[in-house]
Amino acid sequence: MREDNMYPRDTISLRELSLRDGLQMTKTFPSTEDKLNLIQMEYDAGVTHFEVGSFLPVKSFPQFADIRNLISYVSDLPKAYSTALTLNERAIDDALDTPLDEMVIALSATEEHCQANIKRSRESAVGLIRTAVKKRKSSIYNPMVASAISVSFGCSISGDVDPDDVLDMALQCAEAGADQIAIADTVGFAGPKQVYELSKRVVSALGDIPVVVHLHDTRGTGIANAYAAMEAGVRVLDGTLGGLGGCPFAPGATGNVSFEDLVYLSERSGFCTNINLDKLLEARNFLATILPGEQLFGAIAKAKPPAPIKWQTA
Amino acid sequence: MREDNMYPRDTISLRELSLRDGLQMTKTFPSTEDKLNLIQMEYDAGVTHFEVGSFLPVKSFPQFADIRNLISYVSDLPKAYSTALTLNERAIDDALDTPLDEMVIALSATEEHCQANIKRSRESAVGLIRTAVKKRKSSIYNPMVASAISVSFGCSISGDVDPDDVLDMALQCAEAGADQIAIADTVGFAGPKQVYELSKRVVSALGDIPVVVHLHDTRGTGIANAYAAMEAGVRVLDGTLGGLGGCPFAPGATGNVSFEDLVYLSERSGFCTNINLDKLLEARNFLATILPGEQLFGAIAKAKPPAPIKWQTA
Repeated sequence: MREDNMYPRDTISLRELSLRDGLQMTKTFPSTEDKLNLIQMEYDAGVTHFEVGSFLPVKSFPQFADIRNLISYVSDLPKAYSTALTLNERAIDDALDTPLDEMVIALSATEEHCQANIKRSRESAVGLIRTAVKKRKSSIYNPMVASAISVSFGCSISGDVDPDDVLDMALQCAEAGADQIAIADTVGFAGPKQVYELSKRVVSALGDIPVVVHLHDTRGTGIANAYAAMEAGVRVLDGTLGGLGGCPFAPGATGNVSFEDLVYLSERSGFCTNINLDKLLEARNFLATILPGEQLFGAIAKAKPPAPIKWQTA
Repeated sequence: MREDNMYPRDTISLRELSLRDGLQMTKTFPSTEDKLNLIQMEYDAGVTHFEVGSFLPVKSFPQFADIRNLISYVSDLPKAYSTALTLNERAIDDALDTPLDEMVIALSATEEHCQANIKRSRESAVGLIRTAVKKRKSSIYNPMVASAISVSFGCSISGDVDPDDVLDMALQCAEAGADQIAIADTVGFAGPKQVYELSKRVVSALGDIPVVVHLHDTRGTGIANAYAAMEAGVRVLDGTLGGLGGCPFAPGATGNVSFEDLVYLSERSGFCTNINLDKLLEARNFLATILPGEQLFGAIAKAKPPAPIKWQTA
């Protein structure tokens, strides 16, 4: 875990997930060199939070085979942070041998989705948080342990999700020792009013623990949901460059909320991101060249920011 | 003016502008029969507010040549309302010969845009509101008089717009007798925080006068801006089916905020629209066939509403 503060409370932290969530459904994967170039270009634009993959068997998930290279690369960039999914004990052990800044344990708001998604019960996933918290002490890197609660705003399998259940899961994660808790609209069901109300409750219940909102823009409400989360006090948001990343449960739909549109929204909402949008859009152009078969999304890349007005905060 | 209430205070009124704002930039125009079929299909889906054109010289604006047919058609539909732009005295006189429900006088928040857009000063435009209010008494139809303040959230010519100036313009319109006042993000510059703050002030200052927020989705914040407006107490929103309608000042950018996405947002935010989204998407498919050269936008048409959860209010 870095000495400096990974999630400062007084501004927005935007996390770029294209090399993890973005690569879950692509037909091809970039080379390690291209991935590192992408990270460098984004870093040069001001991006500091990178989710670089998932510790999974290389045979089934070749897109994450070079995860150690990426973690190592990010660890050499001043004030940059790497996060990665660690979905079982083996993954935790592997992660602890690297200078990863944050291990992410995924679970779900509903038992059905948890079993379908990570082949384990919610209780068992909470147990995995405990294991990670215990084990990290043995690592010289001592990474943060985060939890991500999937389908917090509606489940593709069991339908409506009771906000009380999400709050209860969040408190269980906190009690197990999670340093940070994400509520995720995994399947793009959320509306902004719902995001505002649930985020407000979770932020209030978790006190000092940073709350992340992870959004997919399947139904056009992604940026509205992000705004609602910010209004509710959420200060960490996830996105992918070009909205890369489909969702297996919503074929044909767009994926994660566009990172560059989140940058624009943040600046337009009074938060200084320290991200240079022009440079970020160059990185997006590069992403398009290294994943030529994939459609990218997002509005600001097409329209460009409104030059005649003051839209940037700093 | 209809006896029944065109803008009830206790719910959201969504106005569909594809046959006016949507036709400003299209390469071809639908036939009158196709326009009437579109209106009927939308009405069957539950749409009640139609902007049907602008009273302009037919020679220069052939797309609005059949405006009287459309007004007449809408006037025969129970609890449906037609609105149309009347940008000069001649247009007002013409409109007063029809059963139009609402005349709309456009002006701008900035003098520069007002001159460029309607070739008249803001003061002169406010005078036109007074003229319309006076003249309508001579009409057996006695339509409402509305004003629409363009570039309320930033001007493509003069840049940042002082919210105080917009508020002042709104109060001048009210003082001149406008029954309803729209603040418009004509060039797609607005961010949600800005929309919330300005809307809140205008709603509060205008008291009983309905406030409309008119949005373009040029930079991906359209639905977020609509949500922010609703949160600020705005109860009338404009959109076009399929987001039809480019903006001459933002080439390549998308046009109006998508009407069908506004329906989804409203329902997801707890407002009953009485609009059947399936039927509305059929009307959208029809629109695509009658304007084959135009690109349509909007997310919900692609992804469909999230069936497993309760997303509808009624």
